[in-house]
Amino acid sequence: MPVITVRIGKGRPIETKRALVAALTQAVAETLDVSPDWVTVLIEEYDRENWATGGELHADKFGPGFGKTGTVEV
Amino acid sequence: MPVITVRIGKGRPIETKRALVAALTQAVAETLDVSPDWVTVLIEEYDRENWATGGELHADKFGPGFGKTGTVEV
Amino acid sequence: MPVITVRIGKGRPIETKRALVAALTQAVAETLDVSPDWVTVLIEEYDRENWATGGELHADKFGPGFGKTGTVEV
Amino acid sequence: MPVITVRIGKGRPIETKRALVAALTQAVAETLDVSPDWVTVLIEEYDRENWATGGELHADKFGPGFGKTGTVEV
Amino acid sequence: MPVITVRIGKGRPIETKRALVAALTQAVAETLDVSPDWVTVLIEEYDRENWATGGELHADKFGPGFGKTGTVEV
Amino acid sequence: MPVITVRIGKGRPIETKRALVAALTQAVAETLDVSPDWVTVLIEEYDRENWATGGELHADKFGPGFGKTGTVEV
Repeated sequence: MPVITVRIGKGRPIETKRALVAALTQAVAETLDVSPDWVTVLIEEYDRENWATGGELHADKFGPGFGKTGTVEV
Repeated sequence: MPVITVRIGKGRPIETKRALVAALTQAVAETLDVSPDWVTVLIEEYDRENWATGGELHADKFGPGFGKTGTVEV
Repeated sequence: MPVITVRIGKGRPIETKRALVAALTQAVAETLDVSPDWVTVLIEEYDRENWATGGELHADKFGPGFGKTGTVEV
Repeated sequence: MPVITVRIGKGRPIETKRALVAALTQAVAETLDVSPDWVTVLIEEYDRENWATGGELHADKFGPGFGKTGTVEV
Repeated sequence: MPVITVRIGKGRPIETKRALVAALTQAVAETLDVSPDWVTVLIEEYDRENWATGGELHADKFGPGFGKTGTVEV
Repeated sequence: MPVITVRIGKGRPIETKRALVAALTQAVAETLDVSPDWVTVLIEEYDRENWATGGELHADKFGPGFGKTGTVEV
């Protein structure tokens, strides 16, 4: 009963999430040899002002528009 | 100082959350023999389009209304 | 399908863990009105040298014997 | 490539988050002797009705205004 | 810079882990259209006595041998 | 009552952990203006065969000796 958590930038459309969970579930089911029905996937979305690398917020690195303009960044 | 994280579907009313954290805290305090004051509970709510089982989003399995109509599903 | 994570100090005997997961599952099933079969509980154990409060490791606060002597602390 | 997750009460302004991630990144980079560029910080914000201590929601302990009035509590 | 956490039962050989992280990384890179180099995967292994479903430890459901005999269960 | 989780490679000596939790606690206490006593730090250590970037296990990238030779990598 694997549980997968995937943390991504906020703002992906549902089509992308649909493809993401299908691909992650298949990846786990095949490599661990378990039924896909046993696999849970949780998507955790982060706003750009809650994600930082190198000590700098992504809101500052990539601009504040994240999740608002439809332009997505991971 | 146990820390409990409980991941549930989005949209539960505060009355339910109130009962949930009280019950979880009591469960931990009694079985581990610690003071309830030492117990932290964090509720993490997931939108239906961020939770999947069997490779399928719950938004697709149970409909997109989750968290909007007041009908709740875990 | 709630997923509960409970973080505790390392070294609890299996009898305590058995009681803990039963109590947590019942607490969630009753307050959220879901079947106990849908509830997953994950126990995460921390060594005293990996848990700190007030900026001080519990190994330093409570001694290094944690998880070795059979004396348990949460 | 350390990954830091910091869970705080909801409602902090971006200036505080900016200072927080900078300070956390520096703390890790210096004590572990790694480049700041390798450090990721994720901020997870919790509403007062999703955080409890002593079995009681912070919304009940501190009032429901959290994150709405500009008054912040961690 | 997606971060994936995958929680599985303890005791998988490194060959399986190697295939798992490769498949998960490819799944994320393709569906989110990001470089595989940006993807981090963390495997969290749980002992059977730290994983429960339906209020019962997997050590009790599936026997205590988990992770010791080479027989693996997720 | 901020809760910080820091995920690092396995094998750091306790002296490093001591400095790490002190520095993280101070960073949070100062930038959020809370008492250090309210800050919890949890260190999660990962074996090289449970951490991957670019789809490759760190055990394969950096060799299997991690946490065994005293040479540490994050």
